[in-house]
Amino acid sequence: MKIRKVGGELLGSAVLVMTVIGSGEMAQNLSTDTALQLLINSLATAAILYLLITLLADISGAHFNPLVTLIFAYKRELSLGQAMQFIFAQFLGALAGAGLANLLFELPAFTASQHVRGGGHLLLSEIIATTGLIFTIFIALDQKREKKIPVLVACWIGAAYFFTSSTSFANPAVTFARGWSDTFAGIAPKSIAPFIAAQIIGALLGFALTQSLSSKVKSKK
Amino acid sequence: MKIRKVGGELLGSAVLVMTVIGSGEMAQNLSTDTALQLLINSLATAAILYLLITLLADISGAHFNPLVTLIFAYKRELSLGQAMQFIFAQFLGALAGAGLANLLFELPAFTASQHVRGGGHLLLSEIIATTGLIFTIFIALDQKREKKIPVLVACWIGAAYFFTSSTSFANPAVTFARGWSDTFAGIAPKSIAPFIAAQIIGALLGFALTQSLSSKVKSKK
Amino acid sequence: MKIRKVGGELLGSAVLVMTVIGSGEMAQNLSTDTALQLLINSLATAAILYLLITLLADISGAHFNPLVTLIFAYKRELSLGQAMQFIFAQFLGALAGAGLANLLFELPAFTASQHVRGGGHLLLSEIIATTGLIFTIFIALDQKREKKIPVLVACWIGAAYFFTSSTSFANPAVTFARGWSDTFAGIAPKSIAPFIAAQIIGALLGFALTQSLSSKVKSKK
Amino acid sequence: MKIRKVGGELLGSAVLVMTVIGSGEMAQNLSTDTALQLLINSLATAAILYLLITLLADISGAHFNPLVTLIFAYKRELSLGQAMQFIFAQFLGALAGAGLANLLFELPAFTASQHVRGGGHLLLSEIIATTGLIFTIFIALDQKREKKIPVLVACWIGAAYFFTSSTSFANPAVTFARGWSDTFAGIAPKSIAPFIAAQIIGALLGFALTQSLSSKVKSKK
Repeated sequence: MKIRKVGGELLGSAVLVMTVIGSGEMAQNLSTDTALQLLINSLATAAILYLLITLLADISGAHFNPLVTLIFAYKRELSLGQAMQFIFAQFLGALAGAGLANLLFELPAFTASQHVRGGGHLLLSEIIATTGLIFTIFIALDQKREKKIPVLVACWIGAAYFFTSSTSFANPAVTFARGWSDTFAGIAPKSIAPFIAAQIIGALLGFALTQSLSSKVKSKK
Repeated sequence: MKIRKVGGELLGSAVLVMTVIGSGEMAQNLSTDTALQLLINSLATAAILYLLITLLADISGAHFNPLVTLIFAYKRELSLGQAMQFIFAQFLGALAGAGLANLLFELPAFTASQHVRGGGHLLLSEIIATTGLIFTIFIALDQKREKKIPVLVACWIGAAYFFTSSTSFANPAVTFARGWSDTFAGIAPKSIAPFIAAQIIGALLGFALTQSLSSKVKSKK
Repeated sequence: MKIRKVGGELLGSAVLVMTVIGSGEMAQNLSTDTALQLLINSLATAAILYLLITLLADISGAHFNPLVTLIFAYKRELSLGQAMQFIFAQFLGALAGAGLANLLFELPAFTASQHVRGGGHLLLSEIIATTGLIFTIFIALDQKREKKIPVLVACWIGAAYFFTSSTSFANPAVTFARGWSDTFAGIAPKSIAPFIAAQIIGALLGFALTQSLSSKVKSKK
Repeated sequence: MKIRKVGGELLGSAVLVMTVIGSGEMAQNLSTDTALQLLINSLATAAILYLLITLLADISGAHFNPLVTLIFAYKRELSLGQAMQFIFAQFLGALAGAGLANLLFELPAFTASQHVRGGGHLLLSEIIATTGLIFTIFIALDQKREKKIPVLVACWIGAAYFFTSSTSFANPAVTFARGWSDTFAGIAPKSIAPFIAAQIIGALLGFALTQSLSSKVKSKK
């Protein structure tokens, strides 16, 4: 059973990163308009998020994101051991997806990105992007709207590509993997740690926000 | 209970305005084609409207718009006191969303917009945009299609960005907040009052149109 | 009862044409890339078709198209008298929508278009666009998938904007109304009659195709 | 019965290829930005895939792809004789769709494409595109999510237009037909066989992947 679940996380994370990086490479090859490149990048990502969450929900729960996995572990819906396996699969899958995307466009499998992404406004963007992602998932679960999660996550990430200045990474495994593609969607390795730190803060805020607006506290207010 | 509801309106209005202004700033930074900028602006707004109305419907009713709140109060589905709290939260949340969007793109939190939006054709646009928004929401409720409201509002506003010449503000709280960002989605403070006046006329027309096509008057005709 | 139904057809036809012409005018004002203009035109039209068919289905049946009305009359689901009222409302509503769109963009309410649309390939396009539209609607009804008609019609028209060379008018009332806007979506009055003739042929073919693939003939084959 | 089924495959394959080639021709006529051309191409294709699979599922099963048909035959859900009829109809329909698209844009019905598509990265792309397509369809069936197949296939192909370098043909009948249009979506005849070989490998991998993640093997793991 565990192999199937871990396999689901590995597959989903790989396809997600392959889409993010690959569609960025394609768009960069075909246009000089950066807004159009980002529009293509966001639409492809949103469509694949919808597909992956729909199809892998029954297999692994469709986290593809260490922060989501950790919150499920904190809520005791996943053992710590299984959470560790999931997170390992997410990083491994994400890295494989980055390599595959690069090979698909005739690039070396792995090259460190030179795209430095720094500045407080980008970290604030990652905090907000992750707050919203975690809130979206867990308030939907709280409201028994789990069937809407695929389209809701696609909407959040698709829109946050544009309303945040960081283009909304919101996922430590994806952020790490994007460090190894020197293309449109890349991020310089030295920018990764601050991004992940901001995402952790965002996850905590998102979880707190979910708790404060949860239907389960209705009676207290 | 009230705090949770008012919090829902505040959060939703903030995220809505953050998306409208932020995605406009991003698009303006990345492209010189105004149609592409507006396409990105409209797609991000539509996706977030779908998400916010879906997730906050159970919490606050997901109005995010003083005119919607006032109609519910008129229909006695909301007390006047609660309506006032909602409207205050909508303006406050919208303003916070504007400030946040500006900070995300390294701008001062609040700068008065210099984008004058005047002329009878823009006011006619706001009347029509608001008529359609109010009709969409209340005829859907009348037909017990409340589950379709998130996608219907996203469709109306997403399309009205283009078929109206004003790009369809259709919301006094959002209009007010957009006065304080001197970017793509901004509106000069002196243009705000006429826009809101047109929106009020539109809301009245939209409500009248809903009444005249309501299933409840079927028997009379 | 009849007034409400006829009002639904008038309203829907007006908003449909206002969207088609208005979004074309907006796109033309903002960009020089014709493909982007047509993309915006098609997305706005698809979104509004989804909304109008969803909300007006219970009120009038949401035809907005004389050919759809005539097929319902032929199938005896509508009296000939009511069909005539519907068709009158569709032409009147479509014309009002054209005038409104022009006013929204500070143009004279009605100007004959100078955009000649001629040639056998455009008429073949209109035949195919209308065949597909009629097939989509009536095979969905045949399969008791009437709840999917809003999204299916949006998909057909949205895609046919691009895969036909005529951009898929597929509707005599809309074609007539587009004759009176000298903008992106316009059609020179002298091109209208051939377009409508092609649409009538397409409707006949579409209805025949529906009959031949209907589940009701399953037993015979 | 068989005629109706075979007719469904013929019709669906024709409309699919007409859309792929026709929307590419339109986009190429209207813009010089290749990314925008491909965006239009992918959106039109995704919308029509959604429509065709929804409406023809009850009629023929809505394969439109010889590899899908062969897997159903392997699973004994289709006789070999019927599979051969389906595949013949798919190639014939696809070719008719190509001819029709060319005629719609005033081109000769059939011209061999001069667009050579070669290189290992493109073949790897076709393997991955087809793996994902087959996995999407058969894991959805395995999970009794057949109602989601129209939107899932639209999402996969729509996104794979961008994250693969080959733009994701993923279908031998469509690939063959695209050989006979010397336009945006064309493929030089000599590139067809390697593409189909890659698609066959992808189908085998996709089917193996489905088996390994199927709920039916849950108990064994």
